[in-house]
Amino acid sequence: MVVKVGAAGLCHSDLHLINGDWQKSLPLNLPKTPGHEIAGWVEETGTLVPKSIKKGDLVAVFGGWGCGFCFYCKRGDEQMCQAAKWPGLSEYDGGFSEYLLVPSYRFLIKVDEQTTFLKPEELAPLTDAGLTPYRAIKKVRHILGPNRNVAIIGIGGLGFYATQYARILGSGATVVALDRSDDKLEMAKEVGGADFSLNLTELEVRNKIHKITNGEGIDVVVDTVGLESTINLAADILNKNGAIVVVGLFGKEIRTPLFQTVIQEYQIYGSLWGNYNELREVIELAKRGKIKHQIHKFPISRVNEAIDLLRAGNIEGRAVIIP
Amino acid sequence: MVVKVGAAGLCHSDLHLINGDWQKSLPLNLPKTPGHEIAGWVEETGTLVPKSIKKGDLVAVFGGWGCGFCFYCKRGDEQMCQAAKWPGLSEYDGGFSEYLLVPSYRFLIKVDEQTTFLKPEELAPLTDAGLTPYRAIKKVRHILGPNRNVAIIGIGGLGFYATQYARILGSGATVVALDRSDDKLEMAKEVGGADFSLNLTELEVRNKIHKITNGEGIDVVVDTVGLESTINLAADILNKNGAIVVVGLFGKEIRTPLFQTVIQEYQIYGSLWGNYNELREVIELAKRGKIKHQIHKFPISRVNEAIDLLRAGNIEGRAVIIP
Amino acid sequence: MVVKVGAAGLCHSDLHLINGDWQKSLPLNLPKTPGHEIAGWVEETGTLVPKSIKKGDLVAVFGGWGCGFCFYCKRGDEQMCQAAKWPGLSEYDGGFSEYLLVPSYRFLIKVDEQTTFLKPEELAPLTDAGLTPYRAIKKVRHILGPNRNVAIIGIGGLGFYATQYARILGSGATVVALDRSDDKLEMAKEVGGADFSLNLTELEVRNKIHKITNGEGIDVVVDTVGLESTINLAADILNKNGAIVVVGLFGKEIRTPLFQTVIQEYQIYGSLWGNYNELREVIELAKRGKIKHQIHKFPISRVNEAIDLLRAGNIEGRAVIIP
Amino acid sequence: MVVKVGAAGLCHSDLHLINGDWQKSLPLNLPKTPGHEIAGWVEETGTLVPKSIKKGDLVAVFGGWGCGFCFYCKRGDEQMCQAAKWPGLSEYDGGFSEYLLVPSYRFLIKVDEQTTFLKPEELAPLTDAGLTPYRAIKKVRHILGPNRNVAIIGIGGLGFYATQYARILGSGATVVALDRSDDKLEMAKEVGGADFSLNLTELEVRNKIHKITNGEGIDVVVDTVGLESTINLAADILNKNGAIVVVGLFGKEIRTPLFQTVIQEYQIYGSLWGNYNELREVIELAKRGKIKHQIHKFPISRVNEAIDLLRAGNIEGRAVIIP
Repeated sequence: MVVKVGAAGLCHSDLHLINGDWQKSLPLNLPKTPGHEIAGWVEETGTLVPKSIKKGDLVAVFGGWGCGFCFYCKRGDEQMCQAAKWPGLSEYDGGFSEYLLVPSYRFLIKVDEQTTFLKPEELAPLTDAGLTPYRAIKKVRHILGPNRNVAIIGIGGLGFYATQYARILGSGATVVALDRSDDKLEMAKEVGGADFSLNLTELEVRNKIHKITNGEGIDVVVDTVGLESTINLAADILNKNGAIVVVGLFGKEIRTPLFQTVIQEYQIYGSLWGNYNELREVIELAKRGKIKHQIHKFPISRVNEAIDLLRAGNIEGRAVIIP
Repeated sequence: MVVKVGAAGLCHSDLHLINGDWQKSLPLNLPKTPGHEIAGWVEETGTLVPKSIKKGDLVAVFGGWGCGFCFYCKRGDEQMCQAAKWPGLSEYDGGFSEYLLVPSYRFLIKVDEQTTFLKPEELAPLTDAGLTPYRAIKKVRHILGPNRNVAIIGIGGLGFYATQYARILGSGATVVALDRSDDKLEMAKEVGGADFSLNLTELEVRNKIHKITNGEGIDVVVDTVGLESTINLAADILNKNGAIVVVGLFGKEIRTPLFQTVIQEYQIYGSLWGNYNELREVIELAKRGKIKHQIHKFPISRVNEAIDLLRAGNIEGRAVIIP
Repeated sequence: MVVKVGAAGLCHSDLHLINGDWQKSLPLNLPKTPGHEIAGWVEETGTLVPKSIKKGDLVAVFGGWGCGFCFYCKRGDEQMCQAAKWPGLSEYDGGFSEYLLVPSYRFLIKVDEQTTFLKPEELAPLTDAGLTPYRAIKKVRHILGPNRNVAIIGIGGLGFYATQYARILGSGATVVALDRSDDKLEMAKEVGGADFSLNLTELEVRNKIHKITNGEGIDVVVDTVGLESTINLAADILNKNGAIVVVGLFGKEIRTPLFQTVIQEYQIYGSLWGNYNELREVIELAKRGKIKHQIHKFPISRVNEAIDLLRAGNIEGRAVIIP
Repeated sequence: MVVKVGAAGLCHSDLHLINGDWQKSLPLNLPKTPGHEIAGWVEETGTLVPKSIKKGDLVAVFGGWGCGFCFYCKRGDEQMCQAAKWPGLSEYDGGFSEYLLVPSYRFLIKVDEQTTFLKPEELAPLTDAGLTPYRAIKKVRHILGPNRNVAIIGIGGLGFYATQYARILGSGATVVALDRSDDKLEMAKEVGGADFSLNLTELEVRNKIHKITNGEGIDVVVDTVGLESTINLAADILNKNGAIVVVGLFGKEIRTPLFQTVIQEYQIYGSLWGNYNELREVIELAKRGKIKHQIHKFPISRVNEAIDLLRAGNIEGRAVIIP
């Protein structure tokens, strides 16, 4: 399959890649075109592609390209494939490009452009920024409910969606947004629907959480940052039997106090991207207008400017590259 | 504990009781005062009651009085107790009365009258009509999500709440309300937040469901009626791997076609009332204004009129008896 | 892929097919070669097949051939595919034949013949008779435990394996085997490891179950028959919150009493075959010698004799056709 | 209730208590009689105790005494009670004593001495050493199966039982025992039923695990120690999506590498003791002879000797104090 790229989201993973942080962790064949959050239009199909997928169709590209054969693929978690090939993050080239080679139509999700009014720049971020927190929260959704509390640490590309999913999947849970930027916190409340927001740089964050939750603490913390400081905070504000779900990759270690973790039965989860059906669900929410987008478009000629802004923490929502 | 009754809901179970339908099924010691949906104020406490519960406190009475010792009580499902004693449905007297004897403060949930503005007549129905569909939907909440569909059959006392829970616990699922009364269906849409409503007496209900769900069918049907006709319909409109949760007790049998049930991996669940923590969750939703009430107050002198109206299907929402 | 058939199990589904029972339910293109329980050796591979799969490799054929693209395939349940193509049960030909065309290597599971000593006639039945009850019991394994009871109704091809899985997956549950044949019951106890066995034709089956379970009843009934009489029995002996899992297809309806189903919170599940990872697990058990086989080999020239014996209920364990 | 103590297990928690490790963590009112693993005979009952519990009955004492009213008690996890009162670990005195005051018969489990042949010294350790690993493994039992691997780190009082539960609850998983003592490892294999054992002081532990698991790693590690070194090992040998369950309290922190935890979707759980129904299940296993005991009896006059032996790591199995 060849897809004409309509838009490709710019992700912190791209910065990690550019920094060389993952040289030893990922099997890259440099040089490589980055970009793993992609939407566009079908340009060319192969002979085995079903007729329902045609040239010109708007598609989101699921990026967790798997072998289809290992234990993880066969249970539906292709993004966890034993031999994963991710566009822009493996030997395959990514979406900061006019065209993208996709190894199978099984990695595409078709979206009806005319009835949904969705655009590639809205779809592209859904395939990672909009997918990763969805899986993270779905993983612990059984914990959430009317008198439970969920906190999102970091209201960046992922956190903005996370706030919305906490509301949609939370079965009535109270949603608290945490970040260092008041602008992002306001966005989380006004657009994302958070019930409360707290600036991480304030004194007394723990006490304020204590008050908001009537002394109980937070039942689910989604950490989209992953720094020592954010994970410390997460462990500090956690309620008995609470869960921390980490998706951010900025730090080096996850550390929690042993005694409390055992005695309070804490749960800590890493969560990786999302699977194909989860992306279907996210796109369904978008089709029905149940999630809001916060997008900044950059023509591909200005990609380095976008990178600089993201690195400086000055993107509210998601930067999207238009080739 | 003695509770001064503020309000007691009138339930179809009371009609079954009055009809003598359950003479052989339940260990009643007649004569008996009915009424198992109760809220009121603490009148008298015993010596073992904690100081946090005081005379004059507004309380909802959890009706699934259990032994606290059997397998079901010890897992938190006291309403399923091996030796259950339910007020108004066992040898204990119920709430159509000025005062109620409650065997333990562990069956009460205290509600702050001043901060929540909740009234006994709003609380009382939550303890059964508002609790039973909550448990029913929570049981299958893991099935629900953005591209799933849930249908509520019967928009009576329970169904009106069920519609709301389908929205709150449904993680973005589409909610379809089904009843024979257009007035009730309108209430389900306007107040309860159903996405679609269909009159059961219409021709082509199945086809309309087919259309609403893009040919997929319904993933979760909550049947608050339990008649042969409603269960037939439930099985007919069910999606692959779909679930029917039955809480209504009007019929005699649950029947589904064997071949489809096996090949499509249907799931059928009976669901009984709710447990204490589930009632806590329901009341929390009410405290935060996330569920709406539809209540008709009758002084206890008019209880027989209320019974006649309920029997005729002419109560929209819940009738509540005020002693 | 072409597989040289080593053995193909004979299943009640084949009898249903031969009887014409499923003419309206399944999209067959007659005439057709039956046989969906297949093992053999790789004969020919295509160009896209990984090098780890070579001519001469012993393989079990997973029969739930799916599209790989629909919701069910993408969650790993290819046997539930929206557009399923099962060998011998769809327009594809099955395994009562010297060679079998398999649409993808993704439907094969390779078994090392030299280290495992497994033979095609042992592997073949695992792909359905040995897979279907595995999924059925895994579905409700969370219910089982040291003071729970599980009953297997029907100790035929599937039930013999079911008895063994009840022990392996049961976390210490007591296993009760039920059948009309004393010989099969003896096999269930001696070989399958059932704790108790009861002849269905005996008087007082219910009372004996009552006694075995200290008055509690059975927590999980796996019905491999699916007749009105067996499902009635299942409902009759069920414990509070118990589950019936139906895999047998002999009857027309599943019927349970409404009042008990609701009040006792019964659960009823249909269960279809098994998925690829489940087959991997079953084969792993076989590789480690943890499941026993009960096989009767028939050369393909005697297939009609095998069919007659199966129809008459005179096969203990599984009949396997050798081409 | 007064219970005449028959036996009380000696636990590492008692050493922590004696060391003063928990002075700040637990609300003790010193001086105090330790001992929280208790079995004995009913000596005196109060007026509210059901007639089925009589003087002279052999009972195991569930030690997680809870309020019966908070969220955790009401869901059945009384050992997690918001206001827990544990014998020997709170202001209540424990079982290193002739008699024990128990606040409610709801914390006792009666065992028929004549039919089960169980003795107090076998029962007592089940209430903690035999209960804690049961809950730990049950928590992640859904992960286990025929081609999964489970490792137990530390074959002390808890680890010896853990090995057995890994087999009983593991659905066919391979069980690996790890300790620094060859004697304990032999016990784990010969008596506990471990498939493999490895001495933690050997070089190449990681490589040997790699080999045993065909390069996959361990799916569930139960760490009964909780030291930095054991948790490091656990993280090192973990398979993709694997779980670490920590019950040991020797260390200060749980630390896992962030990148792997996220990318491999590791899961880390603290697990606290067990609940009443879990103790029922453990005792059921004992009644049926499905778990083996490894007990060393010390008269209460030699309690200090037992403490010294335990501190030095020289107890194989569980030391039990007989008053």
